[in-house]
Amino acid sequence: MEKAAGSPSVGGSYPQKNAEILSSQYGINLFLAGLLLTFAWAVHAVGISKSHLLSYLITLMLIQLLWMLWYLCRSCTQRRLIRDKDTHAGARWLKCGITLFAVITLILDSFKIGYYIDFSNCLSPTEGIFPVTHAVHTILQVYFLWCHAKDIIQSFKTLERFGVIHSVFTNLLLWTNGVLTESKHQLNEHKERLITLGFGNITIVLDDHAPQCNCTTTTLCSIFSQGIYYLYPFNIEYHILASTMLYVLWKNIGRKVEHHQQHKTPFKFHGITVGMIFGLIVLTSTIAIVVVYLIQIGRSKIKSELALTMFYLHAIFVLALMCTAGIVALFIYRLEDRSLDNSKNPARKLDAELLVGTAAGSWLLSWGSILAIICAQAHPKYTWYNLPYSVLVIIEKYIQNLFIIESIHREQEKVNDDIKTLRIVTISRGSTLSLTPSYKEIYNGRAAGEDGEVPCLFKGTICRRENGGGGAKEETSQENSLVTHLASDISFYSRSSVTNNKRRILKNIAAFLFLCNLSLWIPPAFGCRPEYDNGLEEIVFGFEPWIIVVNLAMPFSIFYRMHSAASLFEVNCKT
Amino acid sequence: MEKAAGSPSVGGSYPQKNAEILSSQYGINLFLAGLLLTFAWAVHAVGISKSHLLSYLITLMLIQLLWMLWYLCRSCTQRRLIRDKDTHAGARWLKCGITLFAVITLILDSFKIGYYIDFSNCLSPTEGIFPVTHAVHTILQVYFLWCHAKDIIQSFKTLERFGVIHSVFTNLLLWTNGVLTESKHQLNEHKERLITLGFGNITIVLDDHAPQCNCTTTTLCSIFSQGIYYLYPFNIEYHILASTMLYVLWKNIGRKVEHHQQHKTPFKFHGITVGMIFGLIVLTSTIAIVVVYLIQIGRSKIKSELALTMFYLHAIFVLALMCTAGIVALFIYRLEDRSLDNSKNPARKLDAELLVGTAAGSWLLSWGSILAIICAQAHPKYTWYNLPYSVLVIIEKYIQNLFIIESIHREQEKVNDDIKTLRIVTISRGSTLSLTPSYKEIYNGRAAGEDGEVPCLFKGTICRRENGGGGAKEETSQENSLVTHLASDISFYSRSSVTNNKRRILKNIAAFLFLCNLSLWIPPAFGCRPEYDNGLEEIVFGFEPWIIVVNLAMPFSIFYRMHSAASLFEVNCKT
Repeated sequence: MEKAAGSPSVGGSYPQKNAEILSSQYGINLFLAGLLLTFAWAVHAVGISKSHLLSYLITLMLIQLLWMLWYLCRSCTQRRLIRDKDTHAGARWLKCGITLFAVITLILDSFKIGYYIDFSNCLSPTEGIFPVTHAVHTILQVYFLWCHAKDIIQSFKTLERFGVIHSVFTNLLLWTNGVLTESKHQLNEHKERLITLGFGNITIVLDDHAPQCNCTTTTLCSIFSQGIYYLYPFNIEYHILASTMLYVLWKNIGRKVEHHQQHKTPFKFHGITVGMIFGLIVLTSTIAIVVVYLIQIGRSKIKSELALTMFYLHAIFVLALMCTAGIVALFIYRLEDRSLDNSKNPARKLDAELLVGTAAGSWLLSWGSILAIICAQAHPKYTWYNLPYSVLVIIEKYIQNLFIIESIHREQEKVNDDIKTLRIVTISRGSTLSLTPSYKEIYNGRAAGEDGEVPCLFKGTICRRENGGGGAKEETSQENSLVTHLASDISFYSRSSVTNNKRRILKNIAAFLFLCNLSLWIPPAFGCRPEYDNGLEEIVFGFEPWIIVVNLAMPFSIFYRMHSAASLFEVNCKT
Repeated sequence: MEKAAGSPSVGGSYPQKNAEILSSQYGINLFLAGLLLTFAWAVHAVGISKSHLLSYLITLMLIQLLWMLWYLCRSCTQRRLIRDKDTHAGARWLKCGITLFAVITLILDSFKIGYYIDFSNCLSPTEGIFPVTHAVHTILQVYFLWCHAKDIIQSFKTLERFGVIHSVFTNLLLWTNGVLTESKHQLNEHKERLITLGFGNITIVLDDHAPQCNCTTTTLCSIFSQGIYYLYPFNIEYHILASTMLYVLWKNIGRKVEHHQQHKTPFKFHGITVGMIFGLIVLTSTIAIVVVYLIQIGRSKIKSELALTMFYLHAIFVLALMCTAGIVALFIYRLEDRSLDNSKNPARKLDAELLVGTAAGSWLLSWGSILAIICAQAHPKYTWYNLPYSVLVIIEKYIQNLFIIESIHREQEKVNDDIKTLRIVTISRGSTLSLTPSYKEIYNGRAAGEDGEVPCLFKGTICRRENGGGGAKEETSQENSLVTHLASDISFYSRSSVTNNKRRILKNIAAFLFLCNLSLWIPPAFGCRPEYDNGLEEIVFGFEPWIIVVNLAMPFSIFYRMHSAASLFEVNCKT
């Protein structure tokens, strides 16, 4: 699985490493220019308005549209060009997830169009053109990702690199734009709460709150303007997901892939009932807590404090459970000594890096809270709950990352082929040992080979486990005795039932953690942010500095939850 | 050159991938906690003072000291444990560079100790303990890097990973601390200039300007407090260099390395006279410009504008020259179709990523300037020079990165072995063809094999160049005719003289760019920052937002110049 880069390319003489740098530098500059426009809009720079930013985004989207159309046409007419596929990239559930988010994004776009029509007197035309372009862009991009996310492009490599990296950074900029709009909205809500609670000492200016003119149809207006902010979290997830899928596509350009089959592992509800039940309890209770929190917070000082206490206690309980589950899972992994697969795999590498990278966002916030609690002069009672909460957030993500990254690196059991070989060998020997049915059972349960020993049973099959210690001896002795002694059959069966149990526990843990992460995505995404409402950090760091930290770190913290949920879903399927 | 990760490790059963994640997450948390302390100090958080931050840094340094001592002792007593070395890591010139910076850092520490003694009445003890610890830390760390930068650790892997990653992030935090102190100083100077120029509309508060008590020895005090800020740029470079070297050491833990010899390529002045002369002219003129700039700026409005105009014109000229040189070099690379080496090499990968990553810092600033010029309402004449300057900064780094990354990825000529084989073959055939002296000449000039053809001349030697096109045919025909026809000798010689010329041009370009990058490091490192003094960006983005952007992006921009100079030095040695 080496990269083709370096060797003279198929379509031209330009070395692949250079094409990679050439295109990535183009993408970075595209992104930085957009980032500065966004920044300029956020700080109300003189002479730069929202319509400048939107025009830039529209241009980028149109260029991407043109490129995608060209690519789709070319791949239709010349089907033979793209033969290689990366089986790890663009998993089906990822595509389904992105489609779901895209559908909600389309609803958001239609809301925005409606909002523009209502306020068309005082909004610039770009605010109408943007959602239309965005809707078209969304539809075509989802189609593109469904058809081509697994592609390994081998022709016109330099040109394709530019197209794909352009798409990656266009989506990242749209993500930034979404995040900023959402942050501004959250900050406005927070400021309104502060006004209600009577904090007059902070200079409160509501930012981009409402257009300067009256709405033409009053009822629809409020639905549109309120509804938009409930749909934004999905739009944000859509863009970041799209950009990661496109990034994997970019990394795959020009790669040489070994053709190895990956057997599909569909998601099954069977056998994960316990995990699902606990997970669903957490999910329901979290939704309830969020609703109560959003109703209570900012009403009065006492109600706010109660809401915060409730939120912290619930979160502490959930995080403690998650930590325990993660530790149990890691402990099970330590019991069985399966080797890890370290072959080149851009999709998996990105997954691992994103998990650690985005966790850093919430770690930053947690360290901020811990520091604030340690250094604050006055401690209202409810703020003390923040300390175990912050510590648990750090530990939970630490353990969960270890679990997920080890899980996605574990070598997948290749039971099918091994079992077939075994049976053929057994049959060719003409023996009617009772071994065969027991292996059948193992095959149905897909458990044998879990500890990599089946392929070592017969010589001639490559021994995939390089165990230097006692395991090798064990295998050799088994090899000698297995065919003659029936007793070993039973021991093997009982061993496989142990691994089966382990597997079931792991599957349940993955399912539980999946639902927990989905639950923990909801509060920050829908405006339940104790980092704002707690007040302690704002006092220690100052209002402005802390708001800047929260607004920078929060998007990554939110993305972490969605991304880890996606990874845990994959872990569940693979286990 | 695959990683050993995954297979059961030598010292324990813990999989390497997990140890990697375990330690990197520890390091990130260490860093984030320190970062927040630094941030808290920068924003004058309530209850967090500089001594808290310094105590944290002292603790980290002491832990690193203990770990380094343990490692040094262990490697002395058990020499056999560390046998593998990464020949790419810790190059000699890198070690020399870090030693130079470390020496200046030690001077800085002694200045700080002197400063503490002078103001000991009103400074906290940590401000005295810090430079002492830092000096010890610096000495031991440089010794450690001299002896062990090339190590590939294979025992106690998990423990070593923690120690090394601790060291990486300790150095990064010390870098952050240095950068922040330097930024505060620069900002204070900028504010003082604004006061002189009579800008009263900005709320000017000088930050951490001077201690609250009087100095005991007046003359020494001013030397210490002034001198410290001229030494900081070197301290900053020292820490970032140390942290990159330690990071490579961390990445190398548990790696399996093919033992291939890398012949040392010492730096030679011979043959790069033109590049050196032009480079030295740029260096001298830059130093002159910086001195004039620092004297003139902030004196009066006219003098400031003159200084800015002078700076921009000089920079535009230098950058245009650098762009041209870079384009010529890339064009030469396109002429010869040498394949790139894509083997696993953490040191090189980090180099490439750092080049692109840190260039992003200055690209951000340049895009800010471009945006400001486009959107500003009023344009004083001198601000227009900022536009070509900013555009050229972007283009120059774009081209230079392409050049450096292609250069460090080009397969190095293995002349020594090839020539030896060739001569042995020639001698064993008993022929006294005039070929031998000509090859000798090529050998002396170290030019043969540049296009990878020598190894293909005789069968039995592995043909290292997989050229699908006309090259293969050419080689085959040469192979048949070379030994019999003397004529081909001449053609081969003339060809090698062409490659010799190309090589000489490339070496000159690398030398020129090396000196130019060193020159361009000086202005921002020593306080010549037109991004502050230009004024246009501050008007468009606002004073605070723009200062934040500059203070965040500038350290990377400065590091880029030093890092690219180091890379170009390597390119010069390799070419």
